[in-house]
Amino acid sequence: MLNYEVNHPDEEAMREAAARWDAVAKPLRSLGRLEDLVTRIAGIQRTADVRVAPRCALVFCADHGVVEEGVSQSGQEVTSLVARSIAAGTANVNLMAGAVRADVFAVDMGMARDIDCPGLIRRRIAPGTRNMTRGPAMTREEAGRAVQAGIDLVGEMRARGYRLIATGEMGIGNTTASTALCCALLGARPEAVTGRGAGLSDEGLSRKKQAVRRALEVNGPDAKDPLGTLAKVGGFEIAAMAGAFLGGMAFGVPVVMDGVISAVAALLAARLCPAARGYMLPSHMSRERAAALVMNELAAEPVIHADMALGEGTGAVALLPMLDMALRVYAGPHTFEELGMEAYVPQEEAT
Amino acid sequence: MLNYEVNHPDEEAMREAAARWDAVAKPLRSLGRLEDLVTRIAGIQRTADVRVAPRCALVFCADHGVVEEGVSQSGQEVTSLVARSIAAGTANVNLMAGAVRADVFAVDMGMARDIDCPGLIRRRIAPGTRNMTRGPAMTREEAGRAVQAGIDLVGEMRARGYRLIATGEMGIGNTTASTALCCALLGARPEAVTGRGAGLSDEGLSRKKQAVRRALEVNGPDAKDPLGTLAKVGGFEIAAMAGAFLGGMAFGVPVVMDGVISAVAALLAARLCPAARGYMLPSHMSRERAAALVMNELAAEPVIHADMALGEGTGAVALLPMLDMALRVYAGPHTFEELGMEAYVPQEEAT
Repeated sequence: MLNYEVNHPDEEAMREAAARWDAVAKPLRSLGRLEDLVTRIAGIQRTADVRVAPRCALVFCADHGVVEEGVSQSGQEVTSLVARSIAAGTANVNLMAGAVRADVFAVDMGMARDIDCPGLIRRRIAPGTRNMTRGPAMTREEAGRAVQAGIDLVGEMRARGYRLIATGEMGIGNTTASTALCCALLGARPEAVTGRGAGLSDEGLSRKKQAVRRALEVNGPDAKDPLGTLAKVGGFEIAAMAGAFLGGMAFGVPVVMDGVISAVAALLAARLCPAARGYMLPSHMSRERAAALVMNELAAEPVIHADMALGEGTGAVALLPMLDMALRVYAGPHTFEELGMEAYVPQEEAT
Repeated sequence: MLNYEVNHPDEEAMREAAARWDAVAKPLRSLGRLEDLVTRIAGIQRTADVRVAPRCALVFCADHGVVEEGVSQSGQEVTSLVARSIAAGTANVNLMAGAVRADVFAVDMGMARDIDCPGLIRRRIAPGTRNMTRGPAMTREEAGRAVQAGIDLVGEMRARGYRLIATGEMGIGNTTASTALCCALLGARPEAVTGRGAGLSDEGLSRKKQAVRRALEVNGPDAKDPLGTLAKVGGFEIAAMAGAFLGGMAFGVPVVMDGVISAVAALLAARLCPAARGYMLPSHMSRERAAALVMNELAAEPVIHADMALGEGTGAVALLPMLDMALRVYAGPHTFEELGMEAYVPQEEAT
């Protein structure tokens, strides 16, 4: 049903990148995880000549039928309001991306309100998912189409010249869906991983836990069937984000995770195709409760720990200048040889 | 002996900044620690109209007599080689700073080799400290002069228009001094906090622990006398960095900590004058073993966790684009009111 090419990062390019890092005049491994990220991008792009520009953020927007259960303090109109603001270039993610030279695209994967405005990429599957506490959020076929839309969009963006893609989302109610997915895929208890999303009250939090429990009971998702699980308790923007990670693999583009919703989508992609893991880069550790659990499952170690939980791709965009700075050092004319200095000796070989 | 004005952050400016954050159209507190940093800068700069540009990194360079004990794999000539490279604009920190529009200055606080090159700020106290395993690293008067040089330099940089200062250091052997300071000030055991610095071998690490132990035994530093402790087991660049934090307080300039050496200098400044704590901003959590201990003592929560340990101010510089991005959102024309949206309600008041 899904159509994508399975690839693996290029090991030769990664070896070359790692060797380049060791030649730079600085203590060995002293840029830590930033070195790892650049080396991984070399593998993904199949060349040690790593490029992270031009780059863009794809912010997938959709609505969730489960908001009927009172799991969010905002109404569905906010999804399209913010999507419109992203398309117009005035939302939080645009402001941040403007500081780091990244383009931002809003993608309508299925918002309740069918809006049309310049700059909005329309890939609508339906006007929001159905209420997952009463049955599946979407059909399996819809889930597949949403994932495929994400895959294909990465291909289109690569064709337009983008070398790195940051993921993001906007969807009132989508932490309820991502929490249910996290429970279904990892066997976590709703009580343990349901968080306050955009700032839910105690009462709302209790309704949200109840909705997650009910959605799992009613739909009985099977972790061994990730697409079926996505259809039962997921969302259109989450599906498309999972597709974006698969697209990263298919088209050789590093795809940056944002917060917990994006991380759950990454986990889905990894379950659909384990090789996709090599193409996802972590950015920040969200303060949402499920984040640490999912990051751990993905063996991802985000470098930003700022208790952020804004969404829209803001965390993924925040990683970009770190990559820029690391690449300046990586690509700089600044090796031990050129400075006439003795290289640092790896610790094992030191005397 | 030290000459500086004691100040406290402006609470009215901080209240105004916090209120501005709550008015921005995003979930409350969703930029987490980035919001806190901007709010703190408002207090430091005494205005909610926060500015973090123009900004510069001051990289304090000095040598350490303790290298005679074999505590480093590099020789003292590397200190001046790198300082020259920083002054010439070609070192790691310059490459990274170039990506984020920060100027970089190398400051000679007392390198073994007396070099002169364009761009090097000369504040030499002596050609390196004395070997602290045989007696005090410097006199109390020298320590005071080095601290005062750091204070005064921040005043000079503020007068030149810089609104934020990142700290950094270069000094072969200086993690031995910072470890001894950490032990003296916090009562930590040398075995527990001595790390490999720029990549020391097992044998070198054992010599380094021994040197730290000896320096503490020989000099008997008293934590209640921070300037005396600095003189006994510190370094000229560490002293000047401590001064930079005091200068931040005196001149209303936020001063960004770098890694563990800079954090120990910040701790010294806080011991010299507790009010200085309000003027220091953490950047990254170094992978050096003492870092977590010192950050905890300062109640500082760095947002970058990348296992970096490069020095030169690279970690402090890495924080700058985060601040830029947060400020775009903070200053952006993007409030709930302007969007015609209902504000998120603080959780305590939500129903």
